[in-house]
Amino acid sequence: MKEKIGIGIVGFGNLGRGAALAVQKCGDLELKAIFTRRDPEALAGQAGGVQFYHVDQAEDFAETIDVLILCGGSATDLPAQSPFFARRFNIVDSFDTHAKIPEHFDAVHRSALENRKTAAISIGWDPGLFSLNRMIAEAILPEGREYTFWGPGVSQGHSEAIRRVPGVKGGVQYTIPVQGALEKVRTGETPLLTAAEKHIRECYVVAEKGADQEKIAAAIKSMPHYFAGYETRVTFISEEELKAKHSGMPHGGFVIRSGRTGAPGAEHNQVMEFSLKLQSNPQFTASVLAAYARAVFRLNREGHYGAKTIFDIPPAYISMRSVEELRRMLL
Amino acid sequence: MKEKIGIGIVGFGNLGRGAALAVQKCGDLELKAIFTRRDPEALAGQAGGVQFYHVDQAEDFAETIDVLILCGGSATDLPAQSPFFARRFNIVDSFDTHAKIPEHFDAVHRSALENRKTAAISIGWDPGLFSLNRMIAEAILPEGREYTFWGPGVSQGHSEAIRRVPGVKGGVQYTIPVQGALEKVRTGETPLLTAAEKHIRECYVVAEKGADQEKIAAAIKSMPHYFAGYETRVTFISEEELKAKHSGMPHGGFVIRSGRTGAPGAEHNQVMEFSLKLQSNPQFTASVLAAYARAVFRLNREGHYGAKTIFDIPPAYISMRSVEELRRMLL
Repeated sequence: MKEKIGIGIVGFGNLGRGAALAVQKCGDLELKAIFTRRDPEALAGQAGGVQFYHVDQAEDFAETIDVLILCGGSATDLPAQSPFFARRFNIVDSFDTHAKIPEHFDAVHRSALENRKTAAISIGWDPGLFSLNRMIAEAILPEGREYTFWGPGVSQGHSEAIRRVPGVKGGVQYTIPVQGALEKVRTGETPLLTAAEKHIRECYVVAEKGADQEKIAAAIKSMPHYFAGYETRVTFISEEELKAKHSGMPHGGFVIRSGRTGAPGAEHNQVMEFSLKLQSNPQFTASVLAAYARAVFRLNREGHYGAKTIFDIPPAYISMRSVEELRRMLL
Repeated sequence: MKEKIGIGIVGFGNLGRGAALAVQKCGDLELKAIFTRRDPEALAGQAGGVQFYHVDQAEDFAETIDVLILCGGSATDLPAQSPFFARRFNIVDSFDTHAKIPEHFDAVHRSALENRKTAAISIGWDPGLFSLNRMIAEAILPEGREYTFWGPGVSQGHSEAIRRVPGVKGGVQYTIPVQGALEKVRTGETPLLTAAEKHIRECYVVAEKGADQEKIAAAIKSMPHYFAGYETRVTFISEEELKAKHSGMPHGGFVIRSGRTGAPGAEHNQVMEFSLKLQSNPQFTASVLAAYARAVFRLNREGHYGAKTIFDIPPAYISMRSVEELRRMLL
């Protein structure tokens, strides 16, 4: 029997929990330990038989863990953790602050390269699979236009923005693609669309007792960057309904490239589309991380050190199958 | 200015014509020559200013052509041409006889490796982009089921089968995905579906004068492998209508993986979908070949010799952009 790839997880929020489940679904990966900043004792038993340790103990596992999956947030956790852990471990992270990716890449790359480790950064679905599809579609159809629609799904950032409005006790925001815009793009048209023309913002809000609902709705709808300029719908619901119907974390979206091939005057429309419909956003993102943990292990074993993105990694490296089997069965 | 990648094309049927147009849309590729088995003089002027040569002259261009795009058929052309040309050139082909891919790979691999050349085989959309999506989706959602639906689009094989029926003067067959089956899979259900349950076969047929249409329709519908067992619709039309309305080569399809993540008893459906809607099948396939010609050139320059499939090639290699730019703009 082939030895399994030893996996560690850092962070046990929604993403970390999803990663534990995803790793356990892969016959070639073995979850060795979960590292947390909380009290490890308090989490015992929450991931089957897997042991929890304090994050400071991670370095003791450098010999038994082949790849560390980092499940912290992009705002403060990963900018510090990824370069730090890449000195001792091969890592995968889901760093998703688009504007800071080049900087994050450089920091992780230096740290991994110096220590002959391999690090896959910004893995997930956006950045991640959506980026990959944008890239491939552009390379194949250089003449054309790309559209990303997000949703239907919960936006954590917008939900938090709602919850900061005075008088709001709880709330959730669903980003919903505008069906008419989606259909237009799919027919091969290439309209210029703003984010607001592509998305509706649907809010379910629980108001504090006695709060002025009209005032709350107006405050949400006029909030700059988040809601102003968008078609925003605000519905007030009870706390019970919020809990019962809106505690899931569905998400998804569409990456569409509408391009043209052929001689001028005799052109053909060509439409490429990739979409996700996810009942659990964190569990899906975690499943992508688990697959790329496998790739990172193999890249490292073959001497490919430093930071990598989804663009750099040969797709076969994420598959449990051998290349011979892939050619025979999936090509 | 960076020197352009020199491209040659072998074969000037629908795919070869598409390749000439695709290469001309890429600022970093330069079409140097087109090789044909026909009389080169007779084709002069059919690809802008590009020169035609007899296929036997190709070897004279080993110094100026960086990558040869092979646009022959999979039945007899490519099994001979790909290993042959891989001795002198980096090549890309669209070999699509699924069952013979391992054998074709081995033959091309030996030939390319011995001569320090790089060869991408079975590039296009199926095999090609569809295979890539099947592979990625399976790696990410190991628990689940994969569905490929083809169409709506013209199947050359089925159209030829119709034209072999006695009394048939001309005809075309459209493969059409069964909408109900598509929708069912998209909701996260995982039914077992046969090819016949996923597709309708729509035939437009021109009968010879005086031929028995009922007999023709019955012969088509009962043809084993091609139509028997499928919902097959036969409509008789005039030769003029066939020419006016059915001479395009649209195609496309859907690769859907419906998977599950999470703990037993608390699972979530996760649906990944990739689809193509193509007004011109050969022009799109040719555009994929052009992008992978770029990748083959780069792989060869970096010393990666032998045969490769879409699974082996890091996605960034097909892009005109640098990796820094990709990280900054598309990740």
